[in-house]
Amino acid sequence: MKIIIIGGVAAGAKTAAKTKRSLPDAEVHIYTKDNYVSYSACGMPYYIAGDFQDWKQLIIRPAEEFEKSGVHVHTRKLVTKILPSDKKIMVKNLDTEDIQFVEYDKLVIATGAEPVIPDYINKNSHNIYPLRTLDNGIALKKGMNRANHITIIGGGYIAIELVEGFVKNNKKVTLIERSQFVLSMLDEDISTLVQDYILENSEGLVKIINNDTVKEINEDNSSINITTEKGEIFQTDMIVVASGVKPVVDIASDAGITLGNTGAIKVNSRMETNIKDIYACGDCAEKINMVSNTPVWVPLGSTANKEGRVCAINVSGGVEDFEGIMGSAVLRYRDLNISRTGLTEKEALKLGYDTASVIITKRDKAGYMPEVKNITLKLVADKRTHRIMGAQAIGCGDADKRVNTVSVGLLRGITVEELIDVDLTYAPPFSTSIDILISAAQILKSKLG
Amino acid sequence: MKIIIIGGVAAGAKTAAKTKRSLPDAEVHIYTKDNYVSYSACGMPYYIAGDFQDWKQLIIRPAEEFEKSGVHVHTRKLVTKILPSDKKIMVKNLDTEDIQFVEYDKLVIATGAEPVIPDYINKNSHNIYPLRTLDNGIALKKGMNRANHITIIGGGYIAIELVEGFVKNNKKVTLIERSQFVLSMLDEDISTLVQDYILENSEGLVKIINNDTVKEINEDNSSINITTEKGEIFQTDMIVVASGVKPVVDIASDAGITLGNTGAIKVNSRMETNIKDIYACGDCAEKINMVSNTPVWVPLGSTANKEGRVCAINVSGGVEDFEGIMGSAVLRYRDLNISRTGLTEKEALKLGYDTASVIITKRDKAGYMPEVKNITLKLVADKRTHRIMGAQAIGCGDADKRVNTVSVGLLRGITVEELIDVDLTYAPPFSTSIDILISAAQILKSKLG
Repeated sequence: MKIIIIGGVAAGAKTAAKTKRSLPDAEVHIYTKDNYVSYSACGMPYYIAGDFQDWKQLIIRPAEEFEKSGVHVHTRKLVTKILPSDKKIMVKNLDTEDIQFVEYDKLVIATGAEPVIPDYINKNSHNIYPLRTLDNGIALKKGMNRANHITIIGGGYIAIELVEGFVKNNKKVTLIERSQFVLSMLDEDISTLVQDYILENSEGLVKIINNDTVKEINEDNSSINITTEKGEIFQTDMIVVASGVKPVVDIASDAGITLGNTGAIKVNSRMETNIKDIYACGDCAEKINMVSNTPVWVPLGSTANKEGRVCAINVSGGVEDFEGIMGSAVLRYRDLNISRTGLTEKEALKLGYDTASVIITKRDKAGYMPEVKNITLKLVADKRTHRIMGAQAIGCGDADKRVNTVSVGLLRGITVEELIDVDLTYAPPFSTSIDILISAAQILKSKLG
Repeated sequence: MKIIIIGGVAAGAKTAAKTKRSLPDAEVHIYTKDNYVSYSACGMPYYIAGDFQDWKQLIIRPAEEFEKSGVHVHTRKLVTKILPSDKKIMVKNLDTEDIQFVEYDKLVIATGAEPVIPDYINKNSHNIYPLRTLDNGIALKKGMNRANHITIIGGGYIAIELVEGFVKNNKKVTLIERSQFVLSMLDEDISTLVQDYILENSEGLVKIINNDTVKEINEDNSSINITTEKGEIFQTDMIVVASGVKPVVDIASDAGITLGNTGAIKVNSRMETNIKDIYACGDCAEKINMVSNTPVWVPLGSTANKEGRVCAINVSGGVEDFEGIMGSAVLRYRDLNISRTGLTEKEALKLGYDTASVIITKRDKAGYMPEVKNITLKLVADKRTHRIMGAQAIGCGDADKRVNTVSVGLLRGITVEELIDVDLTYAPPFSTSIDILISAAQILKSKLG
């Protein structure tokens, strides 16, 4: 039995390691165009920030360890074609340009995602930095060290994590975000608070341009000039492109593997594609949102790991299902924790739900505790069924704790009324005697009548 | 309509305030033997520790504010009898010793709990300190300031919170605990770790005597000598009695109000006792454990607040149910967070469940983050149904976050298999890509087969 896995960051590495453990006699190979396998891409902003010094700490399991366990790792090998009828892949050696055909019994596509590079970007410029691979991260840090002013295009999770790191390194930052506020994956009543916090807690180093995009970038030997659609012109030293990612699906699609409406590879709960013996998992695969029961594409390391585990079990002849995701996510900007689970109100409205919501601010601990901070929590429910649809929380206190608490409820379709009954732990250093989550549910219950 | 509430700390204060808001025309009275109403008893250990300086910060709502809102507060008035057939209470003025009869239309008993004082204690001694009322807390802090060596009898939540405060104030402490380890409300495989942590993180100031009790206390003018059952003899400067509490039910019981097997007042989900127009809530009332569906008595401020709310709604003519508790609790000892929800394994076994459990230690954040700490998590399930029965977590990291996440699952009888599917938030500063909770569930699933 020969199992080939294309891609080796999170889902691929997980699938490979677990498959080899389940089927010690199988031949397991990872093919990747990357220089590294099994690393924490999510950790790169913290390496760039200088929270730790050695990028090797991001490597979870070095290639040599895979080899020792019997998993063969082929780095700098780009898979250019899948030939399902021959059960072969075509591989290009990125150093020698040699082409090779490799047979498989089972194939796992874990090609991940890649940055969307807008048209106005000169892809050959040395001043433009994406952030996806470990090599990107190492280069970005070097670039940052040389720059005084950095422009970030995009205002999503990674952009905000990078702003934190740049400010920590005393760099001036201009962030350009197409939406009204940064973090457009949150409702505006939350993201406006996040943006305010960022601007107030950046020692004057950060400027955010909203409702605008880059029109033109002019680079000469000594400087880079950016012109926005609305006519702002400024000079910068480097540009970070963080304006979204897309699933890497070309070889899958060329091979006749069905993509979903989201553009990612369609898989069932066993991570099987429409073609026998070909699986997909991680950032290249479509997921089901368990709250709305609709296909979505949300690329996240935690999901990739879970899918890799499920994929390995099925590849190895077992049976395991991956039920889906809930849109749970968390990030921090300095002391502010920002988290969400389920659907935002705008997502729920877009899907046709009639929503009720509440947004409240309350202390995260007893008011007399010296370390007390505020949390702002938004709770969204379906007016008809009273089911909780989602939660968003931000705060310098333990905001993410409340969001994770809600996420388990989403799994079983908990109602607002039921949430009130949850017995949350209480002691003065940990919450108020009636936790903000319970308070929010009580108010939402009154609203629902 | 005249509503009388006996007791005004948490449940009583909450009932009074909310009833007055719902029925502005009603006469609402609080009678309490205490000097204060509406204070955070749970906060006293932190006041004693010196985390904040003014005990007045513990008062949530002063009596004057209640009066302003139309709730009449009668402090130092001990209710000595309930006369249900006359719908009257008998009240003794603790300053004048005058007796007075007061009529009610609806009566709420929120008399709380009181420390169990063992027989070997001389109740008139000036060196013996219980911790229940705000006056107790103020006295205990003064006592601590004068003492060099403090003995704590009992090793429950409050005892451990006090040890933290005493160590912070550089006092020597000897704690005597009847069980094998402190915190006997946890399973031994967890409480042994807590005890180790306390001993290792107390700068040599703390001694814990286990499996032993006090036999004799000899006090003379200059010193206190303690002899334990097993023959240890030592000198101390003051004694804190923290060997448990019991519900205050004498007047209820005398009036024919039914007590449960736990010794606390039996109430239905609307906080009604067996006698019409008499309600009970807070620490004096029995609760239902929603996991085992059995009556329990677990006195906690968070529960008291919830019950007060439900009681007020029903007293005011509305309809609201309090479904019960889950045994959720949290405390800290310095940097160690200690939390539980649901049933411990020993509780589950005692109730006749056939349990499976797992205990694992994992990092709370990505390993490369500078602030990473370990968590130890125990997950208990029912072998037959695979339902999660409970969780216990300790750690210098965010242990309580994982326990609260489980608590919502308990509400709906989540299984081990379902818990694996929960989408928990992930980013390197907040968790590992596969959170310890998911790892524990995966291992437990394998165990269950």
